[in-house]
Amino acid sequence: MLTAKFDQLVKQLRVLPGVGQKSAQRMALHLLTKKRPQGMALAQALDDAMRDIVECQRCHSFSDDAVCPLCQDPRRDDGLLCVVETAADVMAIEQTAGYRGRYFVLGGHLSPIDGISADDLNIDQLVWRVKQEPVGELILATGTTVEGQTTAHFISEAVSRHVDKITRLAQGVPMGGELEYLDSMTLGQAMQNRSFL
Amino acid sequence: MLTAKFDQLVKQLRVLPGVGQKSAQRMALHLLTKKRPQGMALAQALDDAMRDIVECQRCHSFSDDAVCPLCQDPRRDDGLLCVVETAADVMAIEQTAGYRGRYFVLGGHLSPIDGISADDLNIDQLVWRVKQEPVGELILATGTTVEGQTTAHFISEAVSRHVDKITRLAQGVPMGGELEYLDSMTLGQAMQNRSFL
Ligand SMILES: [Zn+2]
Ligand SMILES: [Zn+2]
Repeated sequence: MLTAKFDQLVKQLRVLPGVGQKSAQRMALHLLTKKRPQGMALAQALDDAMRDIVECQRCHSFSDDAVCPLCQDPRRDDGLLCVVETAADVMAIEQTAGYRGRYFVLGGHLSPIDGISADDLNIDQLVWRVKQEPVGELILATGTTVEGQTTAHFISEAVSRHVDKITRLAQGVPMGGELEYLDSMTLGQAMQNRSFL
Repeated sequence: MLTAKFDQLVKQLRVLPGVGQKSAQRMALHLLTKKRPQGMALAQALDDAMRDIVECQRCHSFSDDAVCPLCQDPRRDDGLLCVVETAADVMAIEQTAGYRGRYFVLGGHLSPIDGISADDLNIDQLVWRVKQEPVGELILATGTTVEGQTTAHFISEAVSRHVDKITRLAQGVPMGGELEYLDSMTLGQAMQNRSFL
């Protein structure tokens, strides 16, 4: 609209979730008018994150290094392992500040319709891990969607010989809800009241 | 929360207008999970725009070059000059697709409270321009705030010897607006300036 570089910026800003043409224009004008150093810092942070953030070798969440801070933290309880679908779920549970165990990220849920089978998720790695390093409790914190429930049951079968105590988050997580959008209070309660599968 | 580079990205995303902690996290996770090439393209577009977009020497809007496309376009009418506060206003008027003249960006409005006087705006440059290049009509499209009105009057005085026809945008009831939600000042003005159907 104004210049080629402006148009390019507006177009690229629209890749952000929830940002349409109008907000992208507003963002571009705001940065150009008053926040150029901050705009450059954002460009740098974006580039760094996109290039350097990798998958943690142990939990498959995001990490700057081979093993993430949550896996390295010596104060976390090794006897508790919480299995989630995505790194966003790790973040959501961490924000409740009520869980002190470890995490394991599956990378999604089983979904025959979308062609996502067990091989597409980190399920083998999870089975291998609980075989090598026994845990006192495995918390299957997948979503409460049909796919999430199916995934939990599938994992439960796969690890049953290696884990005595397998639990699910308590009722309180609304059906069809994605963990990452849940408020911390509900999520924290659900973690505290988790039940046997 | 997850890693230092993730936290840094979330922090920098919050410089965008309308983006709080939750949306910044959601944006970062979305890019990292599914849109890394697009995230890098956004970083590049941001950096390019912040570094390379300058002020057009003629109209003081944004430009990739010394003179912007709107000032260079030979199909625009040199006899019409529309004076606005910001480049965002140029963009808003361009989107109506109903104006084919040139623009001049003041860089704000007079505001004694904020210490913004005529010297802080491009008013001298505007006076110089209409002296050098007479225009048939000068449209003072500054805001309808007190400051915008004051700015329009100030400019009107400053250029009166050089321009015959000075106009203001029509004030009235906005399209699709319900009368009951309109402020009484606007409604009173609209009533006073009513026209034949
Ligand atoms: Zn990890
Ligand atoms: Zn220009």
